[in-house]
Amino acid sequence: MRKGGKGWPEATAPLDGPAAQGSACSYYEVYFAIRKSVKIGSQANRSSSISASNAETILVRGHDLVRDLIGRIGFTDHIWLLVAGAMPTPAQRRILDATLVAISEHGLVPSVVASRMTLAAAPDALQGAVAAGILGCGSVVLGSSEAAGQFLSEVVARAASADIRAAATAVTREYRAAKRTIPGYGHPLHKDYDPRARRLLEIAREAGVAGRHCEAATVVAELLPSITGKELPMNVSGAIPAALLDAGFPLQALKGVPIIARTASLVAHLLEELQRPVGFVLSHAAAAAVGYDGRAPAGFVPTANQ
Amino acid sequence: MRKGGKGWPEATAPLDGPAAQGSACSYYEVYFAIRKSVKIGSQANRSSSISASNAETILVRGHDLVRDLIGRIGFTDHIWLLVAGAMPTPAQRRILDATLVAISEHGLVPSVVASRMTLAAAPDALQGAVAAGILGCGSVVLGSSEAAGQFLSEVVARAASADIRAAATAVTREYRAAKRTIPGYGHPLHKDYDPRARRLLEIAREAGVAGRHCEAATVVAELLPSITGKELPMNVSGAIPAALLDAGFPLQALKGVPIIARTASLVAHLLEELQRPVGFVLSHAAAAAVGYDGRAPAGFVPTANQ
Amino acid sequence: MRKGGKGWPEATAPLDGPAAQGSACSYYEVYFAIRKSVKIGSQANRSSSISASNAETILVRGHDLVRDLIGRIGFTDHIWLLVAGAMPTPAQRRILDATLVAISEHGLVPSVVASRMTLAAAPDALQGAVAAGILGCGSVVLGSSEAAGQFLSEVVARAASADIRAAATAVTREYRAAKRTIPGYGHPLHKDYDPRARRLLEIAREAGVAGRHCEAATVVAELLPSITGKELPMNVSGAIPAALLDAGFPLQALKGVPIIARTASLVAHLLEELQRPVGFVLSHAAAAAVGYDGRAPAGFVPTANQ
Amino acid sequence: MRKGGKGWPEATAPLDGPAAQGSACSYYEVYFAIRKSVKIGSQANRSSSISASNAETILVRGHDLVRDLIGRIGFTDHIWLLVAGAMPTPAQRRILDATLVAISEHGLVPSVVASRMTLAAAPDALQGAVAAGILGCGSVVLGSSEAAGQFLSEVVARAASADIRAAATAVTREYRAAKRTIPGYGHPLHKDYDPRARRLLEIAREAGVAGRHCEAATVVAELLPSITGKELPMNVSGAIPAALLDAGFPLQALKGVPIIARTASLVAHLLEELQRPVGFVLSHAAAAAVGYDGRAPAGFVPTANQ
Repeated sequence: MRKGGKGWPEATAPLDGPAAQGSACSYYEVYFAIRKSVKIGSQANRSSSISASNAETILVRGHDLVRDLIGRIGFTDHIWLLVAGAMPTPAQRRILDATLVAISEHGLVPSVVASRMTLAAAPDALQGAVAAGILGCGSVVLGSSEAAGQFLSEVVARAASADIRAAATAVTREYRAAKRTIPGYGHPLHKDYDPRARRLLEIAREAGVAGRHCEAATVVAELLPSITGKELPMNVSGAIPAALLDAGFPLQALKGVPIIARTASLVAHLLEELQRPVGFVLSHAAAAAVGYDGRAPAGFVPTANQ
Repeated sequence: MRKGGKGWPEATAPLDGPAAQGSACSYYEVYFAIRKSVKIGSQANRSSSISASNAETILVRGHDLVRDLIGRIGFTDHIWLLVAGAMPTPAQRRILDATLVAISEHGLVPSVVASRMTLAAAPDALQGAVAAGILGCGSVVLGSSEAAGQFLSEVVARAASADIRAAATAVTREYRAAKRTIPGYGHPLHKDYDPRARRLLEIAREAGVAGRHCEAATVVAELLPSITGKELPMNVSGAIPAALLDAGFPLQALKGVPIIARTASLVAHLLEELQRPVGFVLSHAAAAAVGYDGRAPAGFVPTANQ
Repeated sequence: MRKGGKGWPEATAPLDGPAAQGSACSYYEVYFAIRKSVKIGSQANRSSSISASNAETILVRGHDLVRDLIGRIGFTDHIWLLVAGAMPTPAQRRILDATLVAISEHGLVPSVVASRMTLAAAPDALQGAVAAGILGCGSVVLGSSEAAGQFLSEVVARAASADIRAAATAVTREYRAAKRTIPGYGHPLHKDYDPRARRLLEIAREAGVAGRHCEAATVVAELLPSITGKELPMNVSGAIPAALLDAGFPLQALKGVPIIARTASLVAHLLEELQRPVGFVLSHAAAAAVGYDGRAPAGFVPTANQ
Repeated sequence: MRKGGKGWPEATAPLDGPAAQGSACSYYEVYFAIRKSVKIGSQANRSSSISASNAETILVRGHDLVRDLIGRIGFTDHIWLLVAGAMPTPAQRRILDATLVAISEHGLVPSVVASRMTLAAAPDALQGAVAAGILGCGSVVLGSSEAAGQFLSEVVARAASADIRAAATAVTREYRAAKRTIPGYGHPLHKDYDPRARRLLEIAREAGVAGRHCEAATVVAELLPSITGKELPMNVSGAIPAALLDAGFPLQALKGVPIIARTASLVAHLLEELQRPVGFVLSHAAAAAVGYDGRAPAGFVPTANQ
């Protein structure tokens, strides 16, 4: 890197992070950024600790896959091992099982509808239809577990130097002042509790993992009526991070739980779509629900309105 | 449908299938196709049997999700329930666990590399990076379990009216004659057996599910040297369908098993990517491995070749 | 590669092709396959001829991007240059423009519905919603241009040694005998001609590019009534490859034309979705069109049926 | 909706927006939210103004597709028409052409590498490989045009009541204070100007559209050395929104421009991948660049390190 390049890092993220290559995207920019990061002896990471293999052995998180894992552990153990880096305790496994089961299947939700319509249009690429479904796991739907996890973590962090009720009140009021949704609360149907949320907290207590995040989640539910003037019961996306964070699951991987769970549901729906297709029925009904209000020649009658 | 439309179904797939709307794609075509399918009393399916819910209850395959599933069954049970429609036996659960664990993680394979690079470029959308990884579960990589399942099913079907060795010989020769790969066999390293394949067949026997598909898979491995003149050991993508089909898993959902398994692996890699990014290192190394052989002005030196 | 590996290529595709790594997918398999291909002096390609750059110059297909392309050519020229490798003639540009315009927008078709629902669920990731829409460009919807292109190419190739009418008859009869759809023909509404198809063929003639593929497409339309007993007019997905192939567009890139065209449409729909959202309206209407026919406790009434 | 539901909207976004269904995602929640929005007479949008059709006519933005658009306008006109809702002026077309050409192709950038690797693994699904490439158009790579557009819009809005230099200084200082990157500036190679950025601004002036956004972009480039102590030239992702916003392109659709442009590039690379595959070469080189630093048994030597 020439001296003249000095100005560049100023306006971008640190070199080691994912934003290292800045706002540019051409090949040589990436090339030079990487080359520079090497030349100036930066901390650019060049390692992974998840898996390695040779002709005899496949290691996963240090375990011999064939000798020690296949046939000896369940898939939920394997998910925890892969993501968290070590085997789960029975309590950790139980929490992960419960949250995966809770969030996996909910009928013809948007991600499932998108996925089945995609398979109808492209029946040869099951992976494409699964991918289309996963792309609907965003900040509004399914991804709210992650936002709720960040909210609860903030409350728990604040509570290190304060009463948890005071911490919860402070963080909740800050969210409200910033006009942010309190993620993990509120439900169009259940005045009391989302039954899935209540059940997950019960399981966390039964499994002996319920701790500060579950406590924070419960305290916030108690505080919300006085702060907002309304009942706002905890929903499933509030209970999932409460239970998982108390069990030791990594905060940054929280969004992966609904994604893994939903993948199983998508496979079930896509098998049904292959056997009893409704993809174009879904598509037609969707399109028929939306009218046309753009310009049209006099007398034009769109087909769907007939 | 007006009389004039009669010609249409001639050149397309049956109305009930995913190709019902034919090769066209405009809105009104879909609309008319659906409308027609209703008018002529066809069997157009308009139902799903996976899940339903009301304010009190969420049903999954007929079970009350909150009361009977969350906290009572493991995720592997739930996957089987969702996909196959009924609770697995312990043996079925064991086979599904073993195959999911076997195929989940293999280091920096193409789908993982694509996924980590995608997160590096778009760090705000974890679901996008997972989707990019899943899109690499195709016919060449990961999807070969499904092709192997179809091959083994063909052998088993043929063996209903013949010796399994004769059936295996016939189907294998037909594949060879059609210049098709025998899916599930051959490995660049292991002259003997892919250790994962050997272990999965062992587990199928231990669990008491090993049946005609495992037998077919083994017989084919024995026959291949005489048919091809080479050793072609069974690989993991041959053993997965052998074990799962004998356990009663649906053939058309076979490709879902590596997809679900790989999703867990992708979440682990993406968490690592957030914490210790290598996405642009991967991208740079990839690009640097490929030269430019197109037209260029005299004296032009591309950066990567320096 | 050790001698024992010799058996491997037998059951797989040639080393140079995309199937070189066979049905396996672990890291070391890929590694060894690549390493082997180098050691044995194979023709493994390691070059690209599309673009190269250094600090001063970005080359695209040998042209200086900044000096010669930006501001001097249109995007359609650039698409042709990128895909076909050389600047288009005015006639080629006109055909590509016409086909892109013809196939870009068709209202709330499945891919658009899936895309808008995906943005509703994940509003922060526009690229994810575009990707979900593109995943619906499959063999049934949009992708039929490619199948029609292969069919027409087959007729034209056969006509090298025969009358085009005889060739068309032979290929059509073979498709029918194999129970394959004749791709590019048949339409639920238009007894005569799909107006887009008719217009595209007109433009091909006006532009002076109409040749053997347009002729083949027209001859097939004439033959179909006598072969099938029905009128089967050419549809837009038959006319697009006829015009593009006669203009010299690469057969294997045909599917890219509807994909590029549809991406523009998706961006328009996603902007509208941000401004006037209907994503959940679409999703709700879709779900409400499909009932539940699975097991349920006595007296259970699903919400959507109320 | 029952009275008890009143509490719900409190913690979520307004009912009409994409977040209307809140953090929950089950089918009946979506159902009730939609049903409620209708019952309470809300402004839920149920219309689209992009396209409509009947058996005779396909309308796109009010124009007759077959009669007025196919063969009469170019694809760039069509993109502008679709996205902005009206035909472009010649100057608007020229700007859109220039930006699309500028950002379309840059060699083996991460999105292209991911796409080619995906096609190598799943060669039957071209649309899946394109989608994988588009998923890499995120906030770090390619998406920075959108962030730069928001930054420039902020400067221009502020300049309504102040000198543009004062407005630019204020907004830039606020970004710096919030530790945000100044999007659209800085480049690892070019001390002076990114040649693409310089060319795009030239074209905006030539076309007569250069206005407040181009002015703001230029002023910021002049101010940055004194604010940051470094040269930070405008890059292509700064010039694209400057030119497009001055031409009247919608701010919220800015990210669509690199996405549409890149789709064309991806099709070119995927055609090359089908003809001269490098997907597994890319994947192997990527994986070989990253070592393993996890736990391993004594003496374990991973294959890639050999």
